[in-house]
Amino acid sequence: MGKGKKKSKVRQKQKKFQKSKSKTKSRQYSQKKASLPAKTPTKSTAYLVAIAQINTLVGDISGNTKKIIAYMEQAKERGAQLVVFPELSITGYPPKDLLFRQDFVDTNMQKFIEIVSACKGIIAVFGFVNKENGVLYNAVACVRDQKIIGIQNKSHLPVSDIYDEKRYFTEGSNADIIYAGNLRIGIIIAKHTEEETAIQQLVAKGIDLLVCISAVPYSIEKNQEQYAMLIAKKYQVPYVYCNCVGAQENLVFEGASFVVDKNGLVSARLKKFGEELFLADINKAGSSFIPSKDQTSEVYQAITLGIRDYFAKTGHAKAVIGISGGLDSSVTATLAVHALGKENVIGIILSSKITPKESLQDAKKICGNLGIVWKQVNIDPIVLLYARAAGCSYDKKNISFTEQNIQTRTRAALLMNYANKNNALVLSAINKTDLATGYFTIYGEATGALAPIADLWKTQVYLLAGFINVLQKQKSKANFIPESIIKKQPSQELRLGQKDSDDLPSYDVLDKILQLYVVHKKDIHEIAKMKFDAELVRKIVFMVVKSEFKRQQMPMPLRISSYSFGRSWQYPVVSGWRG
Amino acid sequence: MGKGKKKSKVRQKQKKFQKSKSKTKSRQYSQKKASLPAKTPTKSTAYLVAIAQINTLVGDISGNTKKIIAYMEQAKERGAQLVVFPELSITGYPPKDLLFRQDFVDTNMQKFIEIVSACKGIIAVFGFVNKENGVLYNAVACVRDQKIIGIQNKSHLPVSDIYDEKRYFTEGSNADIIYAGNLRIGIIIAKHTEEETAIQQLVAKGIDLLVCISAVPYSIEKNQEQYAMLIAKKYQVPYVYCNCVGAQENLVFEGASFVVDKNGLVSARLKKFGEELFLADINKAGSSFIPSKDQTSEVYQAITLGIRDYFAKTGHAKAVIGISGGLDSSVTATLAVHALGKENVIGIILSSKITPKESLQDAKKICGNLGIVWKQVNIDPIVLLYARAAGCSYDKKNISFTEQNIQTRTRAALLMNYANKNNALVLSAINKTDLATGYFTIYGEATGALAPIADLWKTQVYLLAGFINVLQKQKSKANFIPESIIKKQPSQELRLGQKDSDDLPSYDVLDKILQLYVVHKKDIHEIAKMKFDAELVRKIVFMVVKSEFKRQQMPMPLRISSYSFGRSWQYPVVSGWRG
Repeated sequence: MGKGKKKSKVRQKQKKFQKSKSKTKSRQYSQKKASLPAKTPTKSTAYLVAIAQINTLVGDISGNTKKIIAYMEQAKERGAQLVVFPELSITGYPPKDLLFRQDFVDTNMQKFIEIVSACKGIIAVFGFVNKENGVLYNAVACVRDQKIIGIQNKSHLPVSDIYDEKRYFTEGSNADIIYAGNLRIGIIIAKHTEEETAIQQLVAKGIDLLVCISAVPYSIEKNQEQYAMLIAKKYQVPYVYCNCVGAQENLVFEGASFVVDKNGLVSARLKKFGEELFLADINKAGSSFIPSKDQTSEVYQAITLGIRDYFAKTGHAKAVIGISGGLDSSVTATLAVHALGKENVIGIILSSKITPKESLQDAKKICGNLGIVWKQVNIDPIVLLYARAAGCSYDKKNISFTEQNIQTRTRAALLMNYANKNNALVLSAINKTDLATGYFTIYGEATGALAPIADLWKTQVYLLAGFINVLQKQKSKANFIPESIIKKQPSQELRLGQKDSDDLPSYDVLDKILQLYVVHKKDIHEIAKMKFDAELVRKIVFMVVKSEFKRQQMPMPLRISSYSFGRSWQYPVVSGWRG
Repeated sequence: MGKGKKKSKVRQKQKKFQKSKSKTKSRQYSQKKASLPAKTPTKSTAYLVAIAQINTLVGDISGNTKKIIAYMEQAKERGAQLVVFPELSITGYPPKDLLFRQDFVDTNMQKFIEIVSACKGIIAVFGFVNKENGVLYNAVACVRDQKIIGIQNKSHLPVSDIYDEKRYFTEGSNADIIYAGNLRIGIIIAKHTEEETAIQQLVAKGIDLLVCISAVPYSIEKNQEQYAMLIAKKYQVPYVYCNCVGAQENLVFEGASFVVDKNGLVSARLKKFGEELFLADINKAGSSFIPSKDQTSEVYQAITLGIRDYFAKTGHAKAVIGISGGLDSSVTATLAVHALGKENVIGIILSSKITPKESLQDAKKICGNLGIVWKQVNIDPIVLLYARAAGCSYDKKNISFTEQNIQTRTRAALLMNYANKNNALVLSAINKTDLATGYFTIYGEATGALAPIADLWKTQVYLLAGFINVLQKQKSKANFIPESIIKKQPSQELRLGQKDSDDLPSYDVLDKILQLYVVHKKDIHEIAKMKFDAELVRKIVFMVVKSEFKRQQMPMPLRISSYSFGRSWQYPVVSGWRG
């Protein structure tokens, strides 16, 4: 999560220039940038395309349709000749098994017709589910003056980690040009990396504009612009990319739509993580300026949007979080407050006879910093009853594994019960490192509706905490997340004096090993060769392998990498494999 | 789950005949069935094929290889000329994301070579992961005298509900004949329904034997024989079908391999739900006898095998079950005892001030009938503490939803804690009807490692209880599951006098509506037209839709239908769809 600090002097100049422009309302890049090299002169005639980077709700076909029609009207009023919506904008993305429902698909077709009827005085391009001869296509329509002037079915369906489109859709045939008045448009859907054959065909037939409608979830590693720039330059055609925005369950769509001119330079960039209707002249020349990418800031925005939309779209307002005084719960609570407002977050401090005083102080301090309502509950009376029922004594000096599990499950139940009573949702503060190693109790720490930081390695949680402090320092002088929380030795505090480092190596080392194993699929020997202790690697790998049963019942992790636990990771629970 | 009682007189005769034979060791059908029509005379030369219907463990490449070699030796000793193993027998099925690990695939290739080296004096056909030019195929090898005489890559990869093979494998090219001495063999993998094109090609080239190796999970509805019979007759070629057996996580493989003669008559049937090495003469004529199918008996066998293998393959012996005195826990406990032995099942009776005396009596009675160790824990002291912490009073006469949830979560935690302490696994007694309607508490009833009856509608649980009683009556005169349990009004017993019928229609009606919605994808209007109250249908459908978040974190349901919750059902948690 570096901040991309390698900047040439030219780029720095460009950025400075850009900043001076940033207060103007339009996000379109000015033609007046005389100091920047303009590789080709812009055409004299402007062609205004409105990019409708909208946030839809899966299954809310009526609501999505209303939004599409409203944006279409707005685009027309603002003088656009063409308006573009994201992939499957009528149904929302991904509709999952709702696609198996005939009534769902038929409702989508009815609304499709409603949009066609509403389309007057503008050309509209939007995604929908196309039912032809009994099979379904992930399709895009181009419509003008109440007439369908073209339908394109997606031709390369991904067998995706996220969403298996082949489960529902048939692959369409090759791409055709759509004649929209004087403009010849080629349209592709989503995975432009897989659509180059289609693009070649379209270009060979002769197109004036390439449009890509998309629903690509955010991930730290991805960059949609780069490929689009190459394509536009290679085929000398302007490229309009319209992605959806908003969170749908575990997926966050970042928006970040853009326009690339025919020389491969970006001429317009839309908001990240926000809804927007943006007007761009496709004949305007772009700039070679590439904004620096702050991954941690993006992660922060992705997660807060993820939390906000999960609550808004499920009709909940309030979140309940167990506050331990540790890093994970502090960061999770802060993100929740930023997403939902401090009035909607309730902190519950679940202390026991094992909890150190300092942790209680830290827990209260972070609640204070956040300005949230909090309450403290001592878990010991319940833990003691549970321990006795299981045949344990809950003796402070001699806490067994069972008693550690009892403590975390008691905490989870207290949170769930409180949430039930107050129509709230529990947020789990579990991180990816703990999920990977199984360093948590099933029905304990990984309990709740959503796990906002479950796709962040512990080292990334530290970076995020640092980012939050920088962000908040603009408002107050003090560190927002207390230094004592960031600097303390991580501990589950389930037995006296326990430290994570008793069971695990330092998180720097651990996260590296886990990434090599989980993400890069390296084996024990390969990892050991990278100067890690072979026995340690073996131990960690075995922790991952044997804890799969816990991950099978975990709460939804907000996905911010292209390799989050959940659908991206389909490991057997029952297995003889130890590597 | 009818018992297929429509039998013609001819079939009844055949069955009688068959029964008289059933005590002989060989399960091969006798040639002496003079009374049965023999459509073609059998060839004079016998060709003995050994079908090795083995139970593998996913990832246990060494163990699986040892088993393959041992069975190969045994087949040779018993005089077989050819031995056939199931699909992906080296790796076990389904290997899931272990296939993304290079070390895993390479180990599989090493063991492949080991099997080739061990193969002397017999032809062996077995499934493995074939790595060619950097891509993976789901493949079958034919090997003789330490030489590979043919490799066939699976040509039609299913985008399956169970397991998405396209995630890992590339599709192979067309099928080729394998020349094994005088025998020309055509081999296909798994889904013979999708392989007819390959079969046609093979037959056109001329084959003496069609072999299908498979890993098809059990489901109530499926019948692999019927299609094989049609194929064999249509193309006039003997057909050997070798399926694997045993349970792998939520999937149960039934075995039930068979041989069909070239006239489409079954000449050999292997065990259902058991490992077996079976020798069949492929030139022997089959019989038109089709054994009657007792679905409930099959379900019983599938579930007990599922439980047994889950424990054996994860290295656990003991199960903990909460015994309520209701039907679901009684049936689950009985299945567990049949699978694991009574010495390995611990019943915990979790009573509260709301529990009726009759339920306690029934709970103790079923534990007594099963002969299992049981203990009783009163949950009230813990529930009261939880209730107070959440701001409730746990007043017997006025129990809120939150207090109902508290009771079930307390029970779940008591079971989990006890299991932790005793190195046991908790079995959940949740059924499919409750899963579908969300008529359970998250982290409550749906808690545990495995949910054995979670793919049975409540009406099917009743049938299974009846089957168990018939089965056990052979041993004792009394009903095994007490009549009082079967006849009582189902209740969650979370508030005084509660009955399931307060919230739900009768299970007869409910299950029909749920099946129409969940399995057959009918919409509210279509279901209402089938003479169900429209308001009731709407209410039930909404229960299904809004409870998806609970199913996302449920324990593994043992799959016994082709439409179990889990991977077969991918509904959005966050959705605006209400239909």
